[in-house]
Amino acid sequence: MMSLQNHTNFNSNTRNIGGPGKLIVFEGGEGSGKTTQLRRSHTWLLHTPFGQQLLQTQKISQILVTREPGGTDLGCEIRQILLHSSTQQPIHPHTELLLYAADRAQHVEAVLRPALAEGALILCDRFTDSTVAYQGYGRGLDLTLIHQLNQIATNGLVPDLTLWLNVDPQLGLTRANHRGNADRMEQNSLDFHHQVQQGFATLAKQHPNRIIEIDASRSEDEVFATIQKVLEEKITRWFA
Amino acid sequence: MMSLQNHTNFNSNTRNIGGPGKLIVFEGGEGSGKTTQLRRSHTWLLHTPFGQQLLQTQKISQILVTREPGGTDLGCEIRQILLHSSTQQPIHPHTELLLYAADRAQHVEAVLRPALAEGALILCDRFTDSTVAYQGYGRGLDLTLIHQLNQIATNGLVPDLTLWLNVDPQLGLTRANHRGNADRMEQNSLDFHHQVQQGFATLAKQHPNRIIEIDASRSEDEVFATIQKVLEEKITRWFA
Repeated sequence: MMSLQNHTNFNSNTRNIGGPGKLIVFEGGEGSGKTTQLRRSHTWLLHTPFGQQLLQTQKISQILVTREPGGTDLGCEIRQILLHSSTQQPIHPHTELLLYAADRAQHVEAVLRPALAEGALILCDRFTDSTVAYQGYGRGLDLTLIHQLNQIATNGLVPDLTLWLNVDPQLGLTRANHRGNADRMEQNSLDFHHQVQQGFATLAKQHPNRIIEIDASRSEDEVFATIQKVLEEKITRWFA
Repeated sequence: MMSLQNHTNFNSNTRNIGGPGKLIVFEGGEGSGKTTQLRRSHTWLLHTPFGQQLLQTQKISQILVTREPGGTDLGCEIRQILLHSSTQQPIHPHTELLLYAADRAQHVEAVLRPALAEGALILCDRFTDSTVAYQGYGRGLDLTLIHQLNQIATNGLVPDLTLWLNVDPQLGLTRANHRGNADRMEQNSLDFHHQVQQGFATLAKQHPNRIIEIDASRSEDEVFATIQKVLEEKITRWFA
């Protein structure tokens, strides 16, 4: 069962109380390696006895990899606007917030809820915490407003587990720059990325049962070993 | 001065309390002729002594025509997604609502507020009332939620005058079909368009000082004669 937060401004008739699947979110700043680690986790789950047994015994229906923004076809069009808009006008911070929320609403209703209902184990690259960290702490937008929009977009859906890959912003940006093609987010100042990190840290304190901090300053293999351990423990408990 | 509604969830430091300009919105269902009437009003104001005097005496800085969705470059990209998305997946109603809000936030901050601050007379094709009528009454989305999103997107900006071009939905759809190229909105059922009309009617009752109903079932010339009269009276009072 997905956990559900209270929410007041939404049609409760359309509320999906969650199926037997589980939602695992990978969060972190630029260069934290979350996308790489998510892919490695996916490959590992698909090809080792631990993951194969989950599928063979039908404890899970599939292992699904998805992301925000851009987890749906329509979300990809929104992502295009957000990250690479060709327009001359700067994107207003509130516009950005609403576009992320639109992408999320579509992703939740078209992908996450149907997959959870049929019993999928979902690995998702970014979710609501990124909005709090980037737009709230990074850009200084009103946190109450962000919470409100997250509630509207998710209709109360909360991840079962969030892995926060915490990396020193300077190290993260160096890694991201080596990768080339820095997108709009990565071009922000170092201060901005420190504020984002502060946001994730605050969230981790507020939600200790949901968010697990992973030291992502270490080597890729070391980080992955830690993630493997966390995933094995959590998934075993869920599907015992 | 623009009128401002109370709002609680927004950074009041960024709130523009409105300049000396005025915002006139044209609202109505499909085939109500609002876009045609807006263009005629614009031409009339530009080329007759009444409008020319306003400009020459610098009572207004310019006469600006704009629209929602799509009143900014970025809004055009959003409009493209909303009306002609090539994706197979249907757009979830909440996604749609959030996309309209994103378009509006950008339009308000990048176009309307700067223009009002410098004293423009703005003619705008659709604004917040369309969202209430189409998404609230038409699609049945929660009206409190819509109000909340309108407040977020406008940051409290309210039109000085709204002309509601009221046409029988059957007649309006016949007109729209003759025009060809029915977009996604126009393809909805007749029931839907009756609900939209009901939405505008309710709003007109709730805001009698702001919204003026125009009988748009008559000929284009007759409708325009009425609009001219309303505009002359209002504008004269504002800039006397």
